[in-house]
Amino acid sequence: MTLSLTSSLWHDVEISTLFSAEAEIASVLRYETALAEAQAEIGLLNADAATAISNACSQFKPDLMLLQTAIARDGLAVPELIGQLRQALPQQYSDKLHFHATSQDAIDTTTILACGAALSIMELRLLGVVEQLATLSAQSGDVKQMARTRFQRALPITVAERLGAWVVSLRYSIEQLATLRSQCLMLQIGGPIGTDPSPWAEALARRLGLAAPTASWQTARGRIVQIGTWAAVVSGSLGKIGADIALMAQNEIAEVEIAGGGTSSAMTHKSNPVAAEILVALARYNATLIAGLHQSMVHEQERSGSAWTLEWIVLPQMLECTGAALRHTRDLFNRVKFR
Amino acid sequence: MTLSLTSSLWHDVEISTLFSAEAEIASVLRYETALAEAQAEIGLLNADAATAISNACSQFKPDLMLLQTAIARDGLAVPELIGQLRQALPQQYSDKLHFHATSQDAIDTTTILACGAALSIMELRLLGVVEQLATLSAQSGDVKQMARTRFQRALPITVAERLGAWVVSLRYSIEQLATLRSQCLMLQIGGPIGTDPSPWAEALARRLGLAAPTASWQTARGRIVQIGTWAAVVSGSLGKIGADIALMAQNEIAEVEIAGGGTSSAMTHKSNPVAAEILVALARYNATLIAGLHQSMVHEQERSGSAWTLEWIVLPQMLECTGAALRHTRDLFNRVKFR
Amino acid sequence: MTLSLTSSLWHDVEISTLFSAEAEIASVLRYETALAEAQAEIGLLNADAATAISNACSQFKPDLMLLQTAIARDGLAVPELIGQLRQALPQQYSDKLHFHATSQDAIDTTTILACGAALSIMELRLLGVVEQLATLSAQSGDVKQMARTRFQRALPITVAERLGAWVVSLRYSIEQLATLRSQCLMLQIGGPIGTDPSPWAEALARRLGLAAPTASWQTARGRIVQIGTWAAVVSGSLGKIGADIALMAQNEIAEVEIAGGGTSSAMTHKSNPVAAEILVALARYNATLIAGLHQSMVHEQERSGSAWTLEWIVLPQMLECTGAALRHTRDLFNRVKFR
Amino acid sequence: MTLSLTSSLWHDVEISTLFSAEAEIASVLRYETALAEAQAEIGLLNADAATAISNACSQFKPDLMLLQTAIARDGLAVPELIGQLRQALPQQYSDKLHFHATSQDAIDTTTILACGAALSIMELRLLGVVEQLATLSAQSGDVKQMARTRFQRALPITVAERLGAWVVSLRYSIEQLATLRSQCLMLQIGGPIGTDPSPWAEALARRLGLAAPTASWQTARGRIVQIGTWAAVVSGSLGKIGADIALMAQNEIAEVEIAGGGTSSAMTHKSNPVAAEILVALARYNATLIAGLHQSMVHEQERSGSAWTLEWIVLPQMLECTGAALRHTRDLFNRVKFR
Repeated sequence: MTLSLTSSLWHDVEISTLFSAEAEIASVLRYETALAEAQAEIGLLNADAATAISNACSQFKPDLMLLQTAIARDGLAVPELIGQLRQALPQQYSDKLHFHATSQDAIDTTTILACGAALSIMELRLLGVVEQLATLSAQSGDVKQMARTRFQRALPITVAERLGAWVVSLRYSIEQLATLRSQCLMLQIGGPIGTDPSPWAEALARRLGLAAPTASWQTARGRIVQIGTWAAVVSGSLGKIGADIALMAQNEIAEVEIAGGGTSSAMTHKSNPVAAEILVALARYNATLIAGLHQSMVHEQERSGSAWTLEWIVLPQMLECTGAALRHTRDLFNRVKFR
Repeated sequence: MTLSLTSSLWHDVEISTLFSAEAEIASVLRYETALAEAQAEIGLLNADAATAISNACSQFKPDLMLLQTAIARDGLAVPELIGQLRQALPQQYSDKLHFHATSQDAIDTTTILACGAALSIMELRLLGVVEQLATLSAQSGDVKQMARTRFQRALPITVAERLGAWVVSLRYSIEQLATLRSQCLMLQIGGPIGTDPSPWAEALARRLGLAAPTASWQTARGRIVQIGTWAAVVSGSLGKIGADIALMAQNEIAEVEIAGGGTSSAMTHKSNPVAAEILVALARYNATLIAGLHQSMVHEQERSGSAWTLEWIVLPQMLECTGAALRHTRDLFNRVKFR
Repeated sequence: MTLSLTSSLWHDVEISTLFSAEAEIASVLRYETALAEAQAEIGLLNADAATAISNACSQFKPDLMLLQTAIARDGLAVPELIGQLRQALPQQYSDKLHFHATSQDAIDTTTILACGAALSIMELRLLGVVEQLATLSAQSGDVKQMARTRFQRALPITVAERLGAWVVSLRYSIEQLATLRSQCLMLQIGGPIGTDPSPWAEALARRLGLAAPTASWQTARGRIVQIGTWAAVVSGSLGKIGADIALMAQNEIAEVEIAGGGTSSAMTHKSNPVAAEILVALARYNATLIAGLHQSMVHEQERSGSAWTLEWIVLPQMLECTGAALRHTRDLFNRVKFR
Repeated sequence: MTLSLTSSLWHDVEISTLFSAEAEIASVLRYETALAEAQAEIGLLNADAATAISNACSQFKPDLMLLQTAIARDGLAVPELIGQLRQALPQQYSDKLHFHATSQDAIDTTTILACGAALSIMELRLLGVVEQLATLSAQSGDVKQMARTRFQRALPITVAERLGAWVVSLRYSIEQLATLRSQCLMLQIGGPIGTDPSPWAEALARRLGLAAPTASWQTARGRIVQIGTWAAVVSGSLGKIGADIALMAQNEIAEVEIAGGGTSSAMTHKSNPVAAEILVALARYNATLIAGLHQSMVHEQERSGSAWTLEWIVLPQMLECTGAALRHTRDLFNRVKFR
């Protein structure tokens, strides 16, 4: 994909990098190394094999041309990647690599690892926004404004109360992260058709910093939906803030002033609440995308290429969209003054 | 709305009754009674007032014509309902009814009460389905079938393994119910603009069997989204089962036989996996609707009539859809035989 | 489904009646009569058979209990309905009823007939709204207001210009109706698997006032999507009007006054732009639902029970939602005064 | 955005290039040139001004750093781009550039130009696919297969009949293109708030190969929805084909053989119908995205930054998704053999 002029508005480099080709390859190598080490830990592989695999992974550079051809044919990268990696191994260890694993074990697990990293980035940004709101509340919390319900003046409200209502939803999402980490950031394991017992699951999960599964979730995609839902709830909460600020910034209401507002090509007197409006757009975009993750729950048989591909298209975008929304929020709160 | 011939396929009487006009009115009366009692408990009202309110609520019959006119004007029923109820009260207690409350406190809370009841109904049905699967696994668990990934024969699988994979996602949803109850089935409280301190919150929540809020969530709709998400994840899991069964029932594969299958007006030899297909339709319908709940997170200012109304349209339907899916699933598992 | 208190806000009796059980049965009888007459016209049936079928259809009363049982089993009503109807016929004509037709021919065609009737109702309402806007423009067109872009004051605008912009999108939808009628309100014909030549197509289409197909569209559901899209574009345009009016009605802006505005249980001074907000909710609801129709385009094999059922759930709701939005719009424009 | 390994599966270079930063800038320059020429044609500008503007546009290279900063501030590129372009002009013509135009005139028009180019690319691909199907039908049309309705064997069908049903929906979309071009590929014009009379509209539309508007459509976004709908209907039709082929390729059914099928990392005997499954994923992705375009119809006031930005995120992706689906379809039909 080539990038449009305005695409920086809805992209987030830090999040998207986690899902880049480079990061995916590195993550598969990390997975294969940890798999071998975990299997060695429980005595399924001997230590030499694990060391050889670890060494090979640490030095491996894939043939990207072959990889791209294979993706077009296979619809995924792992079979070819493992094939290339096997050739980089001393032959006696070749069949110890990716032992009892299947592409889905590697792909789902590395997806979850990337999600976990994205959640950590967003947690920091969320905490930063909550802190900004605390500072703004300390500065201007006593300012009296007018609460409005159904677009009509209701009763007086302070800035502290208004910001407090925003914080309620952000804290809710921050608190949900613990649940998400323990229940959804889970190792995938199960072999070709999701039925293999995997005595190395705990050892592998520990190495990767993931929850250990009690069963394969390869066709049970509720956890993927929950991760996307978390992202959409965060961007939804930020969209609510954006809608509020755009309304507060109306000239006749003027409850907020935004420094460095957007300019217009035809009307030089204007100062547009651009970041606030973008927050609304991003909220509605994620609210649109989440339906795609739910559609992909209809994951037929023991592996659905259709449903799985749909997840790959949707999930990283949702996280990136929320990342971008958090970025715009931080930027916006650096420039607002309540009055 | 008048009902179409086939609407019984996606409706569920037990769930929809919880959201009926009668149930809503009864629930508002229950709410107002509990509110008065809770306020009496903490000494804000005297006991006489609470008793008078409780008595009035227990005998109240609304003027439904006036109510319907008011709904068209106000977009909601509570202002008129409270008005009528006040007239039924001895005059000295009139201003003690709905004391420090607002329509949203009553509506959000009664919505949550209905959701809680719907979750309990669905929990029972889910447990019933899990039990059916245990029975089926005990009967036919050893039957050998063929696992299929990406629509191609992969490796042999037993019926026990296949049913086990289905149970994984159903159990996940059953386990989520505890979290949902403690985090999302929460009293709404906050007064006209969501900022009132409500020292009676704990006493009221206790009476209604809901979690007590630490702050108003009147514009923080993540909990509503989570309830809808739970419903969509359940119907999504059942849609996966439906897709599997429809595929297993193909004549050439014949891994399942469905007694009493659907008949055709033109082809009398056919036996259609109707219930299985409906599960897929219901999964995709809920996957569609969930986007509406996420859109309604952009809840502008201190109360959005638009976002709130959208929730009222979407949320009950999602629960009803999942209820219908569970009903079809139970019916289907009563009629399948794996082979 | 039992009805909630507020469901009148998003339902429309006139539209929903078109999709009621009674209307569906009457429409199937009309279809079977027209089918027999068309087949007689081209000499496939003799006149006696057509007369007998017509007579039977005009007097037929279905056994609704058996019908409901059959729907639960078959996922549709037509096989049982035809079965009952055959028993009402003199035996020698029994096999002439539903001759060379299949359930889908009857169901798709009667759905299209109901859509056509709904479009006509909505066309009248749209024309009525355009007329209201013309009247309002004649009355208050010269009133000067402030145009606002990105929520900021831009340049002066007249009420005539503002209403003119609203009319642009309504006229666009009115003009689309001709295309819709000729391209999408099309007879379905094709027999059990969509491949039967149907020399009576033109005669049947003429009798039913539908476009004659050049080929069966039984798995080509783009026309269904187009009908739903039309409805969503109309409700989307009305949602834009609703958003504008809610913003214009803000106390500080006061560019519109709405007589008989919504009241509040806690704040008696308020007059809420309830109808305007509902227009936004209905626009977003239809914008949500349309995704379901698009999902149902993945209509596998020669007939998909899943995709088809999903259409039945979604399409009537979308038309009804737009009908309700038009009703609210008419009501709103009866009560606004621009200033 | 950095690219994931598998993103080539859902991207399309030829389509995305039309929406790239380079293409957008070139298109704005083309627009400004044509605007000046059209205004000269009707005597609003003198010929020298138009020539100077044309010359400046033909040589202009924007400062991309400043542009990116401006996008972050303004939410769009045009104000800064015009500013830079003005500096490249002889001072006496500076105010003749972008004369009576606004950013939205330029952005909507260049978006429509890119859509038009994308439609032409997709038309060619559609015609190519229809041709492939004609060839396949000529080769294997007589092959007898089994039609399946509701996943059950129905009646015999020939390959010619089956491919014919696929062609029905593709032809429908090809035929829709004429309507789309005359009704939706329309110049945007209207100035800052959409109300300016634009006597140069016809001359400008002619130069750009677009339909001339009778009124500004700057807040009437039905045409944008129609373009997205067309794309989603095409990808939906291809998704139906993909679903069919994946089902036909099942080992037990074997009605199609796909050369060069996908390989598996764990099961070397498999040949997966990867391209067919991707068609389903892309259909469901576009079916998800279309809801976002409908949401953006709620375009408040005289210009909504939120609704507009949402369009920019969604529309190019939808076209690209359909482009990718057509690419996969062509590739798939090069490799199938019906039997």
